[in-house]
Order: sequence, then structure tokens, then C-alpha cells
Amino acid sequence: MTTAHRPLDLNADLGEGVGAWSMGDDAAMLEVVTTANVACGGHAGDAGTMRAATRAAAARGVALTAHVAYPDLQGFGRRFLDITPADLTDLVIVQVGALQAMARAEGAQVRGVKPHGALYNALAHHEVQAAAVVRALQELGGLPLVAAPGAVVVDAARTAGIAVVLEGFADRAYLPDGTLTPRSVPGAVLTDPAAVTAQALSIATARGVRTAGGEWVELPVRSLCLHGDTPGAVALARAVRARLEDSGVHLEAAL
Amino acid sequence: MTTAHRPLDLNADLGEGVGAWSMGDDAAMLEVVTTANVACGGHAGDAGTMRAATRAAAARGVALTAHVAYPDLQGFGRRFLDITPADLTDLVIVQVGALQAMARAEGAQVRGVKPHGALYNALAHHEVQAAAVVRALQELGGLPLVAAPGAVVVDAARTAGIAVVLEGFADRAYLPDGTLTPRSVPGAVLTDPAAVTAQALSIATARGVRTAGGEWVELPVRSLCLHGDTPGAVALARAVRARLEDSGVHLEAAL
Amino acid sequence: MTTAHRPLDLNADLGEGVGAWSMGDDAAMLEVVTTANVACGGHAGDAGTMRAATRAAAARGVALTAHVAYPDLQGFGRRFLDITPADLTDLVIVQVGALQAMARAEGAQVRGVKPHGALYNALAHHEVQAAAVVRALQELGGLPLVAAPGAVVVDAARTAGIAVVLEGFADRAYLPDGTLTPRSVPGAVLTDPAAVTAQALSIATARGVRTAGGEWVELPVRSLCLHGDTPGAVALARAVRARLEDSGVHLEAAL
Amino acid sequence: MTTAHRPLDLNADLGEGVGAWSMGDDAAMLEVVTTANVACGGHAGDAGTMRAATRAAAARGVALTAHVAYPDLQGFGRRFLDITPADLTDLVIVQVGALQAMARAEGAQVRGVKPHGALYNALAHHEVQAAAVVRALQELGGLPLVAAPGAVVVDAARTAGIAVVLEGFADRAYLPDGTLTPRSVPGAVLTDPAAVTAQALSIATARGVRTAGGEWVELPVRSLCLHGDTPGAVALARAVRARLEDSGVHLEAAL
Repeated sequence: MTTAHRPLDLNADLGEGVGAWSMGDDAAMLEVVTTANVACGGHAGDAGTMRAATRAAAARGVALTAHVAYPDLQGFGRRFLDITPADLTDLVIVQVGALQAMARAEGAQVRGVKPHGALYNALAHHEVQAAAVVRALQELGGLPLVAAPGAVVVDAARTAGIAVVLEGFADRAYLPDGTLTPRSVPGAVLTDPAAVTAQALSIATARGVRTAGGEWVELPVRSLCLHGDTPGAVALARAVRARLEDSGVHLEAAL
Repeated sequence: MTTAHRPLDLNADLGEGVGAWSMGDDAAMLEVVTTANVACGGHAGDAGTMRAATRAAAARGVALTAHVAYPDLQGFGRRFLDITPADLTDLVIVQVGALQAMARAEGAQVRGVKPHGALYNALAHHEVQAAAVVRALQELGGLPLVAAPGAVVVDAARTAGIAVVLEGFADRAYLPDGTLTPRSVPGAVLTDPAAVTAQALSIATARGVRTAGGEWVELPVRSLCLHGDTPGAVALARAVRARLEDSGVHLEAAL
Repeated sequence: MTTAHRPLDLNADLGEGVGAWSMGDDAAMLEVVTTANVACGGHAGDAGTMRAATRAAAARGVALTAHVAYPDLQGFGRRFLDITPADLTDLVIVQVGALQAMARAEGAQVRGVKPHGALYNALAHHEVQAAAVVRALQELGGLPLVAAPGAVVVDAARTAGIAVVLEGFADRAYLPDGTLTPRSVPGAVLTDPAAVTAQALSIATARGVRTAGGEWVELPVRSLCLHGDTPGAVALARAVRARLEDSGVHLEAAL
Repeated sequence: MTTAHRPLDLNADLGEGVGAWSMGDDAAMLEVVTTANVACGGHAGDAGTMRAATRAAAARGVALTAHVAYPDLQGFGRRFLDITPADLTDLVIVQVGALQAMARAEGAQVRGVKPHGALYNALAHHEVQAAAVVRALQELGGLPLVAAPGAVVVDAARTAGIAVVLEGFADRAYLPDGTLTPRSVPGAVLTDPAAVTAQALSIATARGVRTAGGEWVELPVRSLCLHGDTPGAVALARAVRARLEDSGVHLEAAL
């Protein structure tokens, strides 16, 4: 066993309930990850879930990011919304601000911002919305961004002086250009635990993955996103962490 | 003309639109008041209105408070809600946090918290909700509270080490115990401009008012709340300010 | 085995999800009950859950009522709201209307209205809100009401010519006056399956129950409300139905 | 003066407030139009505004349509939302159902459905969303649709056996293919009262308009949409009606 690898962050989406409704097993995932992306009212989350998630994360020493999203609780933030850039900038600011105040109340702090769902996807290519999010990060005092390699928002953020944490996925196939294989393509989602843990380890130790066609793709990511919204997902997340630890990968929050 | 009187703050509720809907004449009221209570998503207000209100207030050098409310856009926060204290504490924190982030984006800061509508009324007597709001203020780092003389929240706040700004009303009749005459009582709302400006001046210079029955009531308030939701209200607010200035009252934000 | 008893309706609350969030096991409960109270946007429910619930109920031949509530998704309709009677009347109408249209789309129809949570509790004693709900039922063409024995809304409805279905609870202790023992009192909620099924049978066959103190209370109810929001609750609901069927109670929708 | 022309419907959007906020001058517009498109909770509107609008329209003998929209009060329904067809169908049904129940309470009925804003625009070309709306109309028992000539939803509706009322605009320039000149093009919106009333008359009597380039475009519309969201718009709407009446055009609801 060696610890010569660069440290890896494991992140997951938490606090995705609202009112009387909950989603996923936050307690279990907090034992797996080093960063929690906490819903702040866009696709999920309210004052109570922000309280619970920030408290639990702080108690475990897990870092916090604000999981910002389109204002669409109804659609869980999974539907593209043609929002104006000014409105998007303002929304990101108030969503993050709400979580920041709650984090401070719990003696913690929001260390970065991760867009959710359809907004995350839009930022891969939508230059106007990307610029709007970057502007919000600047107005928030320069909060770092979590994003996918190759997304247009990455260059926009770096040009504006915003730090970027790149993240990869252990359970998604990649295309030769380093982007995710669309879910509509067979094999886009990896479900075999052996394949998922192997890809996680490849990302952690070799900073790259093989595509379905066998090509090598560089994935210079600092963080790995894990899912916890089903019992099977939680078990898989635990398996990924165990495999990484067994292989001497040092797990450490990116922010 | 003399300036021997203690300074008086004039406050008004601003940013009370939502989406495509607006309310009141914020630009006009910002020329009258020294403090703006900005709606932050409870009874009114969204990211865009918070942006507009904080920007306009900052440009005029008007101080900001967060105008927190029950989560009731539909009822404009005017309906009592039997919310649990934990939920109320959390709600105040995220409402204030949202506005704080926007204020910082505009180079300003939130200097205090003023409850709105039915919550404001509940805090006059509802000890559990009062304690919940005070707890939020503590968790927000000790933000000051704007409240009515005699409200149970005033003692609760002071006991907890929270500064309180007491406020009075120029256009409402008072009872001998220093509380407002209920709106259901004839004469509860003063509409005669001469009466309103006279009461404002009495509060500013003598720190008290006469009741309908002629009794003198001490009103040791540091701020006077003005309304701006109708054209007539704006004109009256201007008249109050003019009368106070003509009488040498020094107008200055309380926070 | 005999079927000499009057028929009994078994009702449960269904369709209590919203967006990506679900609650309870609707499929299981539809095998137990004869009437489904479907959330229609007040405390829970949206267009998609209304579709799913009305479709599933219609497929099973289960009758539908509209489960109306205060406009409080955040609080699941469990918090008293001091709404004006005019607003309450209007809210009930549009909540019911939304479900009626969806029921028609599924070849079914809404047969009655059951208030939820804090509204249900308020209608036990709040005469103004009771009158507002009754007025809505009249304006809805005279839809029947499901209510608790002794609630002020029962007399108000009957006086207005609105049919009332009285309902009881198998898992709640009753006071000598026929109202529910408050949850704050130890023993208010029955959890022993034998006790619950025995009370269900007593209500079904003797139209009454014994209080904790041993007094007999008449409960002339036509329906029994069952819960399905936990795995244990579903099992208990099944046990109640089995016990009733074994005892020859004829189960039949009330409306 | 002659009344040989086919009758023309004048429609306007009403009931576009929410809670404490209002928009436009509904009373004035009800004196001008023969059909009111009433907001039903998508882009605007709540139980109270539906009550007020249906009551006022019924009192004036003005026909009602349901003004359905994306679920986006925040954006006034003006932002494209990439909603699934199943969700869109369900949303239209519950929005219409809510208004239908209120209309019945006021002794009126909803005679058709007019999509609003970004949904209206999407239905010009988005075949999946168009099919979803048509399906909703079928499930609503075959309610007629109000739409723009050339929109893909028109053919989809007619193929499905849904009646369509085509509508035109007096204050918008048309392209040679009969679609509206995009607002981004100079001259797209007509503001000169003489030009607007002349175009209205041309549509009413000649069933067509001239483009900016002088070409004649057939506009076989049965209804003309008027705006009332500004004082100037109301005055213009009145001028259009007066000009049409002076010219002997018979004004009559289309549905």
C-alpha cells in the first residue's frame, strides 16, 4: 500500500429533502464522502434541511458546498429553464447566501458552489448562463466552483479568477473527448460494482479512464462524485471508498 | 430651529414585489427614509427584488434591515401561522442570509432584522415565537432587532444580549399602555396629514404621544415607521419628513 | 360469519408526494381501503401525483375524495393558518377542481371532500373556517364532507344541506365525549395490533368504543381512517381489514 | 355602416395578479373584450384572482378561457421550460380544472384554453409539447384551443378533433408567411394608434394584413388579442373596439 497518489475528494449531494419529504440516506453518505453538496432551495432543500445537513456535515468534519439549481422544486432542477443571466446571477447569490448563514450558525462555512442537474448540464455549453454563474461567484467574494472537465463554465470561471475543482464520475462511461456518454446510449451508466470501483481507482491513481472503445481519456479531476439516492447507491459508494482506501488513495476535501 | 433633539430614524418597507409584480414606490420612499426594510422571500421579495432594493438603498446611503416574515407569499405574511420554533428560527436565518449575500454583492450590509406583518404582531405576545426569533438573531452573530415598545420579543432579545431598536408609528393611535389601538377600533388609523405630522413631531421631540382620550404615553422610540404602498402614503411620508426637518430633528439611521 | 352489520368504509390518505418526493405505499393501501383521499396541492400533491393516484384508485375500483388542506406544502398542512374565510372557500374550490379534472381524465369522479391535518383539526371548533369550507362544498355543487363526530363543521354542513360521512380511528383513544384523546396524553395512540384491530371491530360492529377509563362511547361512523405512511402502518391496516372481513363486516365505499 | 362582416372576438388576458399583487386594469378590459383568458396558477393567478376574474367576466357576459402556462410564477411564464410531455399534459389538466370549478361556482363555464407566454411560443414549433397540450384538451373532454395561425399545435389539435380558434394581433407586424415579426426586429411592435386600429380593421374586414414590405398576408382569424397591462394599452384597446364598432364589425365571443 502506498500513499504517493495525489489526494482525492469524494463528494455527494445531501439535504435533498423538502418539508416532510426526504431523499437519500444522508447519514450513511456522510461516512463516505469528504464534501457534501447541500441543496439550498433551488431543486430541493429548505431552511430545515439546510440546518440538518450543515449540522451533520460539520459534526463529521465534511466540507460544504452550495448545491445551486434552477428554481424548480417541482422538477427537482432537472429541466432546462431559459432564465435570463441577470436572474440566474441573482438566484445563485441568494441560494448560496441562505446556506452560508445556516453554515455560520452551525460553526461551518460554505467552501464552494456546485451547480445541480439541468443547470450543471447547461453550464457545459451555455455560455450566457455560464457567465451568469461566474458573475455570481465573483459577487459572492470569489467562491470556488465545482464543475466537469471541458464545460464552458470552467474556462469562464478561470478567466474571471475563480478557482475550479474538476470532478469525475465513477459510474458513468466517458467519451473519447472526456465528456460523459449520454444516458440515452446503452452502457452510459455503469452498474457493475467491480467496474465502478475500478473506474474510481483509475481516476484516483491514473487520472484517467478507458472509454467503451478502449481509448484512454485523461481526467485530471480532484473530486469524484458519488450517489446516495438508493440503497444500492449507498452500498456502491461505500465500496468505492473502501477500494480507494485499500489502494492507499488519500481522501481529502478539495476545498 | 434647533438640533438639540436626539436623532430619529425613518424606516419603510421596500422591495415588496415578486417576479413581474411590484408594490409601492421604492424610489420615492428612498428619498424619505434613513432605513429600508427589505423583503427577503417570506411575505414578498425574490432574488431580483433584493438586488434592486439593496442597490437602490446603497446608492442613497440608506441603511438596510432584513424584513423577515412567515413563509406566506400568498397571504403577504399577514396571516398568523402556527409554525414550530425550530422552523421559525431556521426560516429567519435563511431569509436574512439570502439578503446578506445580496447586500454584500452590492457593497452594503444588513444592519438588523425587522419582522413583518403577522409575525411582527405575534412577537408582541407569543413567547415561543419570540424566543425562536431571538435565537435566530443570536445564530446570525447578534444582529439587532427592530420591534414595538412593549412587545415580549423586546425583553427576550435584550436578555439574550441582542440590541433592540424601538419604533413608533406616526399614523396609528396608541392606547394608554403604549400599544397600538387595534385597527378594528374607529380612529385607529390617522389619516389627517396634520394629525400624522403632529404625532411624528411629538414622537421625535417629546418621545411620546397623546391617546385619543388625551392621556400622555411615553414612546421612547429611536425609529419611526412610514408607509409607501399608496400614492397618498408617499405624499404623507414626505410631509412627515419635511415637518421633522423643519423642526430641526436630525434624521439618522438607527443601525 | 355474518354480514348483518352495516357496511363500513375504509379510507386512507394517498398521493401525498410532490415532484420527485413520494410518501407512503399507495399501491399497498389501495388493496386495503375502499376510499382514497387524494392530496390536491394544499399539503401535498401536484398534477403528477394526482394523475397517479386517481389512475391507481380507479383501476382498483376505490372511491375518491379530495384531501383539501391549507396552502402549506412546507409544513405538510399540519400548521394552523389564520386564513380569511373568503380565501379558504376559494382555495377549497380550486383544490377540488384540480382533482376533479384529473379524475374525469381517468374516467373517475371525486365523490367527496376530506379536510387534512391542521384544517381538519380547526374544523372541530373554528366556526368561521367551518362555514367557509361548507360554503365551498355548496359552490362545488353540494359535494359531501368527511368529518369527525362532534366537529362544528358537521352541524354546519348538515344545516346547509351537505351530506356528511362521519369517520373514526382504529388507532386512537377516545374521550368520553366522543372526541379524540389529544396526542399529548399518554396512550392517545394505540400501537398494539390486537388493540387496534379490536377497536376497529368494535367500531364496525357495535358502532362505539370503550375509553381508557372503561366508559362506552357511541361512534356512529360510516368510515374508518387507516394510515399507510410507514411499513408498520401498512401492516396494521392490512390486519384491520383482515379482522373485519373475518368477522363478516361488509366493506364498501361510503360515497 | 354594414354588418356583413363575419363576427370577431376580442380577447384579453385577465386575472394576472397573485396574492396581494395585481396587474393590469381588468375592469376596464372587460368593457372592451368578448373573451377573457383567465390565469389559472401557472404564470399568475390564484384562487382569489380566479374568483374575481370569473365573477367579473360572468357579470359582463364575457366568455372565459383558461390561460394555461408553464409552472413559473417567478418568471411570469415567459421562460421556456423543458418539461416532459406527461408533466405538461397533467399540468394543463389541473390548471384548467381549478378554473372550471371556480367558473361553475360563479355560474359560468370555461369555453376553451389559451396557452400563455413561452408555452404559447413553444407551441408554434415544439411538436412534443404541442402533442402534450392537445392530449390534455382531449382528456378535458375536448375543450377548444386558441392559437396562432401556422403554429404546429393547430394541425395537431385539428387532427385530434379539437376545435381551434385562430387569433391575430392588432399591434404586431407580420411576416410574409403569416407569423409574427420577432420582437428583436425594429418595427415588430406597432405603437401608433392609427396603425394599430387600421390593422385591427384590416384583420376584421379583409381577414389579412400587409407586411412591412407591402405584401398581403391572409390571416383567417376569428379572434383578436388585445393587451391591457398598461394605461396606454387600455386606451388603445378601447380605440380598437370603437373603430371596429364604427365600421360595423360585429363583436362576439368565438366560443
